[in-house]
Amino acid sequence: MKRPYILVSNDDGYDSPGIYALVMSLRRIADVVVVAPATQQSAVGHAITVQTPLRARPIERGKTFTGWAVEGTPADSVKLGVSTLLDRRPDLVVSGINHGMNTSINVIYSGTVSAATEGAILGIPAIAISHASHSLKSDLRVAAAFARKIAKEVLERGLPGGTLLNVNVPNVSADEIEGVAVTTQGRSWWDDGFETRRDPVGRDYYWLVGKYVWDENPIVDDAALRKNMISVTPLHYHLTDQRLFEIMQEWDIGRLHKKQ
Amino acid sequence: MKRPYILVSNDDGYDSPGIYALVMSLRRIADVVVVAPATQQSAVGHAITVQTPLRARPIERGKTFTGWAVEGTPADSVKLGVSTLLDRRPDLVVSGINHGMNTSINVIYSGTVSAATEGAILGIPAIAISHASHSLKSDLRVAAAFARKIAKEVLERGLPGGTLLNVNVPNVSADEIEGVAVTTQGRSWWDDGFETRRDPVGRDYYWLVGKYVWDENPIVDDAALRKNMISVTPLHYHLTDQRLFEIMQEWDIGRLHKKQ
Repeated sequence: MKRPYILVSNDDGYDSPGIYALVMSLRRIADVVVVAPATQQSAVGHAITVQTPLRARPIERGKTFTGWAVEGTPADSVKLGVSTLLDRRPDLVVSGINHGMNTSINVIYSGTVSAATEGAILGIPAIAISHASHSLKSDLRVAAAFARKIAKEVLERGLPGGTLLNVNVPNVSADEIEGVAVTTQGRSWWDDGFETRRDPVGRDYYWLVGKYVWDENPIVDDAALRKNMISVTPLHYHLTDQRLFEIMQEWDIGRLHKKQ
Repeated sequence: MKRPYILVSNDDGYDSPGIYALVMSLRRIADVVVVAPATQQSAVGHAITVQTPLRARPIERGKTFTGWAVEGTPADSVKLGVSTLLDRRPDLVVSGINHGMNTSINVIYSGTVSAATEGAILGIPAIAISHASHSLKSDLRVAAAFARKIAKEVLERGLPGGTLLNVNVPNVSADEIEGVAVTTQGRSWWDDGFETRRDPVGRDYYWLVGKYVWDENPIVDDAALRKNMISVTPLHYHLTDQRLFEIMQEWDIGRLHKKQ
């Protein structure tokens, strides 16, 4: 088998410890190129840049770490990389390792997941990988090793078109990992609000603060993490609510225009 | 029935023609408050601001148009409005009227949809409304009138928790509207790339360009618009791919950790 070609991206920026750990692990099984944001892009959701042009500069740290820093979002990076910057099409997109978990509602805010989603949109199998600690100094060996194994698995099996895998790794040592679970996106949520502060000239400003309310369903991503299991969630980007679609057949919605 | 209270937001900014047309229409049936980005926020996806505090300033144009301009994203605006700025909880969130359609893949890039999604996340029924013309001078009367009717319908019927309606209105006169269709999110996509240009000092920059490839399925949002029908798509934000979830039960994924 030809050596596979993997595009690595993230949302923390091309020089984060997480992306470095990921590249070092994946290059044992593949040729790896980094196309990632030049700067921190957390919680950007699936943003793309449409009002201004993008810029990118080549990056290189010895022979092990080469690619492009893109002045844009994670989705921009993957889109620009695949369509323009790279001279061949990647076999796989892997985004991460994010410093902090991306489960439940956080999935829709996540730049890490967004980079992988853009890969799936472009028809390339894709994986997002996050580690459940916000510390930039946390031990990423378990996450990096699992990223390589799940990447190999996806390269061998493929994924159905338009899907991606969202992987979350608990912040424990390899010995403490209780296994791997295929999960669904949880319904944990942020019971959040804003802390109002006043600046020196008397104007209010607002910091987002919140408490995370856990989904207790044992099948979901968060539940796996709480059991010290690695969580793997298959995702897509089709948002139709089929149940409401069926209900709305009874609404006789056509009358809403005629009434005018 | 008590007069309902509607939070209006968008992604084009609080002073766009689209939001003005929406407010003027909705205030015939409800008390309306605007909480919208201070500046243009197109294609921000479901971004929220977590690294810096938010600021907001009161806006007022006579008695008809009051609210807040938030220096943040559409999702920020709704979250800050509901949790902090408003003194009572809205009965409905309506986002728009966007200048340009938000169908198929565009839904996941859309700031307009994102504001409505944030309403749904906060447990408030929500509607996104977009008009299929990018011109700031286009005639928004059909869209504004339909927004009021669908808002009234949702206020009366409610929506299941965690769902929203994504409405797209074709750019034709009221007479030319062929009806209203309940649709699914289409699979049209952008066959896109970047146009590379060189700046005066010799560095490349990249403009996003693309051709829209239409989904021909007659049930989808785009198909309705092409038939001059108003499209109403029920959405949620649960991204689990159930089909791949079933397939992956056979992967024996647990062995991926043991192998280490």
